[in-house]
Amino acid sequence: MTRNPITPTIPLDRDGVHHGHLRLPYSRDDSAWGSVMIPLTVIKNGDGPTALLTGANHGDEYEGPIALQELALTTRPEDVTGRLIIVPAFNYPAFRAGTRTSPIDRVNLNRAFPGRPDGTVTEKIADYFQTTLLPLADLAVDFHSGGGTLDFVPFAAAHILDDKSTQDRCFKATEAFNAPYSVELLEIDNVGMYDTAVEAMGKTLVTTELGGGRSSTALSNAIAKRGLRNVLIHAAILRGKIETRPTVTLTMPDDDCYLFSAAEGLHEPMVDLGAEVRAGDLVARVWPADRTGIAPGEYRAQRDGVLIGRHFPGLIQMGDCIAVLGVPKD
Amino acid sequence: MTRNPITPTIPLDRDGVHHGHLRLPYSRDDSAWGSVMIPLTVIKNGDGPTALLTGANHGDEYEGPIALQELALTTRPEDVTGRLIIVPAFNYPAFRAGTRTSPIDRVNLNRAFPGRPDGTVTEKIADYFQTTLLPLADLAVDFHSGGGTLDFVPFAAAHILDDKSTQDRCFKATEAFNAPYSVELLEIDNVGMYDTAVEAMGKTLVTTELGGGRSSTALSNAIAKRGLRNVLIHAAILRGKIETRPTVTLTMPDDDCYLFSAAEGLHEPMVDLGAEVRAGDLVARVWPADRTGIAPGEYRAQRDGVLIGRHFPGLIQMGDCIAVLGVPKD
Amino acid sequence: MTRNPITPTIPLDRDGVHHGHLRLPYSRDDSAWGSVMIPLTVIKNGDGPTALLTGANHGDEYEGPIALQELALTTRPEDVTGRLIIVPAFNYPAFRAGTRTSPIDRVNLNRAFPGRPDGTVTEKIADYFQTTLLPLADLAVDFHSGGGTLDFVPFAAAHILDDKSTQDRCFKATEAFNAPYSVELLEIDNVGMYDTAVEAMGKTLVTTELGGGRSSTALSNAIAKRGLRNVLIHAAILRGKIETRPTVTLTMPDDDCYLFSAAEGLHEPMVDLGAEVRAGDLVARVWPADRTGIAPGEYRAQRDGVLIGRHFPGLIQMGDCIAVLGVPKD
Amino acid sequence: MTRNPITPTIPLDRDGVHHGHLRLPYSRDDSAWGSVMIPLTVIKNGDGPTALLTGANHGDEYEGPIALQELALTTRPEDVTGRLIIVPAFNYPAFRAGTRTSPIDRVNLNRAFPGRPDGTVTEKIADYFQTTLLPLADLAVDFHSGGGTLDFVPFAAAHILDDKSTQDRCFKATEAFNAPYSVELLEIDNVGMYDTAVEAMGKTLVTTELGGGRSSTALSNAIAKRGLRNVLIHAAILRGKIETRPTVTLTMPDDDCYLFSAAEGLHEPMVDLGAEVRAGDLVARVWPADRTGIAPGEYRAQRDGVLIGRHFPGLIQMGDCIAVLGVPKD
Amino acid sequence: MTRNPITPTIPLDRDGVHHGHLRLPYSRDDSAWGSVMIPLTVIKNGDGPTALLTGANHGDEYEGPIALQELALTTRPEDVTGRLIIVPAFNYPAFRAGTRTSPIDRVNLNRAFPGRPDGTVTEKIADYFQTTLLPLADLAVDFHSGGGTLDFVPFAAAHILDDKSTQDRCFKATEAFNAPYSVELLEIDNVGMYDTAVEAMGKTLVTTELGGGRSSTALSNAIAKRGLRNVLIHAAILRGKIETRPTVTLTMPDDDCYLFSAAEGLHEPMVDLGAEVRAGDLVARVWPADRTGIAPGEYRAQRDGVLIGRHFPGLIQMGDCIAVLGVPKD
Amino acid sequence: MTRNPITPTIPLDRDGVHHGHLRLPYSRDDSAWGSVMIPLTVIKNGDGPTALLTGANHGDEYEGPIALQELALTTRPEDVTGRLIIVPAFNYPAFRAGTRTSPIDRVNLNRAFPGRPDGTVTEKIADYFQTTLLPLADLAVDFHSGGGTLDFVPFAAAHILDDKSTQDRCFKATEAFNAPYSVELLEIDNVGMYDTAVEAMGKTLVTTELGGGRSSTALSNAIAKRGLRNVLIHAAILRGKIETRPTVTLTMPDDDCYLFSAAEGLHEPMVDLGAEVRAGDLVARVWPADRTGIAPGEYRAQRDGVLIGRHFPGLIQMGDCIAVLGVPKD
Repeated sequence: MTRNPITPTIPLDRDGVHHGHLRLPYSRDDSAWGSVMIPLTVIKNGDGPTALLTGANHGDEYEGPIALQELALTTRPEDVTGRLIIVPAFNYPAFRAGTRTSPIDRVNLNRAFPGRPDGTVTEKIADYFQTTLLPLADLAVDFHSGGGTLDFVPFAAAHILDDKSTQDRCFKATEAFNAPYSVELLEIDNVGMYDTAVEAMGKTLVTTELGGGRSSTALSNAIAKRGLRNVLIHAAILRGKIETRPTVTLTMPDDDCYLFSAAEGLHEPMVDLGAEVRAGDLVARVWPADRTGIAPGEYRAQRDGVLIGRHFPGLIQMGDCIAVLGVPKD
Repeated sequence: MTRNPITPTIPLDRDGVHHGHLRLPYSRDDSAWGSVMIPLTVIKNGDGPTALLTGANHGDEYEGPIALQELALTTRPEDVTGRLIIVPAFNYPAFRAGTRTSPIDRVNLNRAFPGRPDGTVTEKIADYFQTTLLPLADLAVDFHSGGGTLDFVPFAAAHILDDKSTQDRCFKATEAFNAPYSVELLEIDNVGMYDTAVEAMGKTLVTTELGGGRSSTALSNAIAKRGLRNVLIHAAILRGKIETRPTVTLTMPDDDCYLFSAAEGLHEPMVDLGAEVRAGDLVARVWPADRTGIAPGEYRAQRDGVLIGRHFPGLIQMGDCIAVLGVPKD
Repeated sequence: MTRNPITPTIPLDRDGVHHGHLRLPYSRDDSAWGSVMIPLTVIKNGDGPTALLTGANHGDEYEGPIALQELALTTRPEDVTGRLIIVPAFNYPAFRAGTRTSPIDRVNLNRAFPGRPDGTVTEKIADYFQTTLLPLADLAVDFHSGGGTLDFVPFAAAHILDDKSTQDRCFKATEAFNAPYSVELLEIDNVGMYDTAVEAMGKTLVTTELGGGRSSTALSNAIAKRGLRNVLIHAAILRGKIETRPTVTLTMPDDDCYLFSAAEGLHEPMVDLGAEVRAGDLVARVWPADRTGIAPGEYRAQRDGVLIGRHFPGLIQMGDCIAVLGVPKD
Repeated sequence: MTRNPITPTIPLDRDGVHHGHLRLPYSRDDSAWGSVMIPLTVIKNGDGPTALLTGANHGDEYEGPIALQELALTTRPEDVTGRLIIVPAFNYPAFRAGTRTSPIDRVNLNRAFPGRPDGTVTEKIADYFQTTLLPLADLAVDFHSGGGTLDFVPFAAAHILDDKSTQDRCFKATEAFNAPYSVELLEIDNVGMYDTAVEAMGKTLVTTELGGGRSSTALSNAIAKRGLRNVLIHAAILRGKIETRPTVTLTMPDDDCYLFSAAEGLHEPMVDLGAEVRAGDLVARVWPADRTGIAPGEYRAQRDGVLIGRHFPGLIQMGDCIAVLGVPKD
Repeated sequence: MTRNPITPTIPLDRDGVHHGHLRLPYSRDDSAWGSVMIPLTVIKNGDGPTALLTGANHGDEYEGPIALQELALTTRPEDVTGRLIIVPAFNYPAFRAGTRTSPIDRVNLNRAFPGRPDGTVTEKIADYFQTTLLPLADLAVDFHSGGGTLDFVPFAAAHILDDKSTQDRCFKATEAFNAPYSVELLEIDNVGMYDTAVEAMGKTLVTTELGGGRSSTALSNAIAKRGLRNVLIHAAILRGKIETRPTVTLTMPDDDCYLFSAAEGLHEPMVDLGAEVRAGDLVARVWPADRTGIAPGEYRAQRDGVLIGRHFPGLIQMGDCIAVLGVPKD
Repeated sequence: MTRNPITPTIPLDRDGVHHGHLRLPYSRDDSAWGSVMIPLTVIKNGDGPTALLTGANHGDEYEGPIALQELALTTRPEDVTGRLIIVPAFNYPAFRAGTRTSPIDRVNLNRAFPGRPDGTVTEKIADYFQTTLLPLADLAVDFHSGGGTLDFVPFAAAHILDDKSTQDRCFKATEAFNAPYSVELLEIDNVGMYDTAVEAMGKTLVTTELGGGRSSTALSNAIAKRGLRNVLIHAAILRGKIETRPTVTLTMPDDDCYLFSAAEGLHEPMVDLGAEVRAGDLVARVWPADRTGIAPGEYRAQRDGVLIGRHFPGLIQMGDCIAVLGVPKD
């Protein structure tokens, strides 16, 4: 059986604050004996639970990397009971390229689990987390946002799971994160997701969508930082008091929550994120890109709900998701 | 002297609504006898002033194309006194590529004026507007937003000019546009701008920055549509009543309004668009992208003002403009 | 076991004419929640056999897409007994790019069978046909031409098979197609071909080579349309009378039918498609591309036969197939 | 004034057969002190007229290079009276890339005249012909075909010129070339063409369109070779007897001869090259590429004539020339 | 089980000198029925051992291809007892591109063993050697150098193996090669290497690193040619006398022999190849590439030794190997 | 007249050590309001001469940037009389890309003088030096090496000039630089060179070729640092004593010093840099890259001399300079 070639340049199990990298040998045309160097901070203080904290699972999502850079810089060992393993740029090559998938192998890390120790660069990263880091963790927080092509209202989320004990822990941690919106997800196709890998090991997972568009704001970053702190206090790793604000709880009961574009063209959103819509309301239009004088295609809500996600760029292709609705619980 | 090879496929001077294209022959590897086809609508009704209306001067800015597509589709001849020449995608190749500059010649149309009839594709477009369409116009509205790499509070703007009569007409039209912010610009480097070409002919110009990020919102599109309608009513081309709301008037007195990044890295905005800042306030931070445990670079306001523009993407390069302040007029 | 993620947007089993798409979710840098949308028409009328009709298995071959677009547009339910499943652009991403293989994964669909439900985009398409559409079919017609780099005399073909009952049905259907040439193929390497997948299920298959060069002609399209109609009448799905013209039946007994270029250079065909040649006749020459005054390499027929295929572009590389001979069946 | 940096590696003015290159220094990333080496043959015998013979002015057109390679290889000095300057690959970088324009600067050589000695690589080639080779010539033959995106019936052509003496010589030489079709051209936009450069010096020019599609056939090459030989005999440079066959003489009176595609899509030719059409006849159709069930766009002849040119590839873009008609000179 | 599609164009088992190719069918966008043609020479004379000689396993390493081209050209059958199978460009597509990995699939051939008969082009090459050529061989010489991104003192090497009999034969052959340096390697990660494939079959292997930088010198080529001749005489395939010069024998006891760059920047070597260094000596520096006035990062030897390898290009990335030390044996 | 848009971020005329950048606004798709930031150090102490010191005029040449980074870091104001203007990466975009020419506009900076203030990025850099920095200088040192495709013996050089006073100063400064070789150059084509711009202003210029191959060595960097120090002492800007070693003085009397490759292939150098050769000696060979068994092309010295330059990569193209000879003076 092949050994995963990744090695950390710092100890994972020594008390104190350690900044370093995960070194992944990567032989290529522009460096025969080169490496992918994934930034890593480990902060440990005695015994206690371990949190594995990841940003930039998709390389064009920024609230996670920013909140985790700040956490890595400012946390003192004495603030911690147990251990923080902080990886602000999970898919580091994608993060440096500012793209969803890795520029090396075009693989979406969040569909690459459990990975392969002798696979492509992204598959090796997945395998290392699957076989080495995840087994060390009690709690995983994996930050997402919409990336370059989607935008979301800020929410934390957990999945409906067969294992109700894990599900319960996940929902409690999501509640502790306390984003403006909290979403209950029933994924239909979760093959290859990091989330599934975490949950299948019975670990507690919090995931998020905090904005999008290949950018972040002072507001969305504040939500990420506060949520991260809250969830680590909830897990008894950080000392402090959870800071709570109102949150809207939503479900996504079925595929009617999603609208897809039936043509390519110029994308005109007709309502903005967070707006309440009724079934039949006009949510978006798509104008032809190559001529004038033709009426745009219309996209209408298939049910009542809140606009929680939308296509971001001004141009859209046939088959792109144009809008996502969430349905308030009770 | 070389003739500009662009020809309209519809008449420019006949009453009624005409939808067509500006056809620019473009011989290339994938089409020896091909063309660039720039969508064009002309709506004319009797005598009266001519407005030349352009979107996507930069190809990744969307409020203009959306507002102009709607205007072209919904305006009836009887709504008009005079003529509307509507070009929703001024730099059409850039618009189709979703990029600031043309994918054909990488030229920024807004620095290509007065153009050349025998130049590159973008230079030919500039020359055609310079020599054929602009001379027909009394009023020009040129829509801009931040595009993929900048984001702005929504504003309309006019320039301080030597020709005070033109300046006066421009400011009055900008006021009529009535965006949430109105900005008085003193451009330092306006060589090659479409704006300069328009103003140098003594035509009335309104320009805008209405958002950014390679996207638009229901709100920013509504501002564009209302402003467009207002300014055409102001010019007595459309019938109707100008719809007025409060606007904040700003100036940009000098280079201190601009902050530039001194390093590449991960961009963290510390205040959001529209916020009031005081000199010395932290406006943004830049984290290293390749390691943890290093304090971020800090960018502080050099004067009191309102944050009216910012770098958009989560990654930033050395020398990128990171923040723009406007200064409220009294 | 992983579920294939492709879903049709129209019913496959309802009477009438239905136009829609096969939707294949495809997450990528320029659309996180995007899709590949493969055009699909289903025309059904009561009980009867099902024909699965595919064009653009290779994306740069056009007679199939044209004949199938016309069939999809013009066929009325009452013309049909049973069902037509029409997919004019089998490898849709390749078809849109005008390339043999998919621009997404560079996979040749016709070597990707049986595919993988969790593989690349092309592998998912193969798996969907293998597991969902082919089992519904009695007859499959898969249109090919030479594409950008080969040109052929127009022929329909069937393979010599171990299963003589299937072979017999295939040859009869090929005969019904009635192209100007009919070819009996003994494939040496058929691993991964769609043809093999069809035949292994005992379905009737007709395949073709109708021209080439990344183009089509009025004549080659007429052959495709007539052959398609003929074979559907033969299968008792369409009503009507088979329209028969003379056809030349050919075999390709061994590797001597193929000539390969031994050098790169400028390709000069010395005989044209359809010409009869004798062993030793000069079939093509290859001139050096970088200098004059050097005699060209000569390629001579290794046996008597008819020139049924040739390298198309003016430049040729070492190892490219330069000419293909067919041998008339006495 | 800058000197053109091109130098021939063989003498231009010595009797005998000389094979070499035009060496154009070209400093670039992959060769600091590299060169573009344009193959050249000079065959001279005593005094007499000079013919300058060029192929691959557009790099994806092959009858010229093939006919000129053969001429360079097989002509003996004693066959010649005067001089042949043979350049089979005029735009050599484009020829090696198999593209219309140069891969170095994307310039169309046939729109680059008179060129610049200190310009891009293509502009330097143009300048060298303008200032050095053309002044040596009495007759120029410049071979063209449709290249990768057009296809033509085989014709030789000359232009209607203000200088009637030159026009007369050109038409006579074109007649001597004796292609299956002979065309009288009134170019509307001839700025930058090699043809114009030749004619403006009062030299005799024959140009051709002999096929297309990025390929050639045994037949089209035979037309090129025979025509070349005929015109050189006509010019009294080669000894021998002009071989004459019937030719159809055509004119192209106005822009109605050209049809352009009004949409992108799948291109279906409805008549083939050489067919006679009447005004109103359907010449081509364009099907949508992304869906079925939509009627294709139709393109009908705007006048009676012969189909002498057509769009070649199976895909077409808005604004591409889809068909060209010639009008028989009674 | 799938058959490997590679076939030699010459016999592998006939006496005499045969020059030809390994033909690997490769269907692709620019040649539907194309091939990769790997140059091959077989020189055989009666019975005796077989040597399989390979260069350009990595496509940017040149001493091997040069020495093997000369051997293939100059060896007469009567010089040989047994057989030479000469493949100067093992990864031929990489060799033609001048890159380490294949431009077709970006695979590193030296990590692709044992390969797959139905895999990518590089995997097919690996499989053919694994299953067809290696079983024929007694001795394998596989030439390496540093390629574009590394530079080495010239050495031949053998591996410490579990199979001591094979190890012993390998070290004796390496000694016979007699490069200026001889290195004893204990590979830590040899999964997928050609070396491992050879050794696992119990064949004798000599491998080398003879220079680097995407170049060669008269000196490094002379070392390759002399070593090749020596080892073939040692194996009793070539007649002659081994030419011996002094060699320095080195080991690489552990990971301390390798230094990696901790930052990207401008690479300044502080000692040159072959220099003796003491632990703590400054071996290299890395300057920031984007600013002046900042002290460079310093890289110091972690043990005493000889500098046998170094990063080659002037720019370096984080994680690149910057220096390699060898330790003289006693 | 257009103003050059480059501004220094530090004063050019204040005493002390100042590290900063030349900021060149560069609007582009990935940064609408971005900049090229060229590192700059100015060290000034009272009155005295000004030296303008540049590296990476070609972006893949490294001795200059390394020597200048060290000079900028280690020089104290009190070491200086007058002023040092240090620009380690003259063509900064090319330097960051590791390429000869700029990745932005593919322009060779050393052929772009005098530049244009409204031209491409490289032309703007040239114009800024031409109009702003050069007028401030008395002495210019411009470091060159062979870059990625050439390699040289280390030499400093000056040009034969019409202005004998400038020539004399240049040769004296070159002598002071005291590289192992000193070369007297009579450039034939110096249009657009920085050298010519410097000399035309009557400034003293020293230029160099110190190695090549896209790399540097401890030795070549030591030559650069010592030469730089020597020439600044010679100019009375730095205090200290010139360190002198033996130098070989060479001329390059005519084009016979250059050999060019007549074919593409595998490049085998037959003598190494610094070797003395006699007319007729074999200097290099070029093997075919696509087959074995063919004798290589041979390149022989056209005169007696010393091999001072050679093609570097293992692959070579037709027309590449393969070898350069220098002729010892008396």
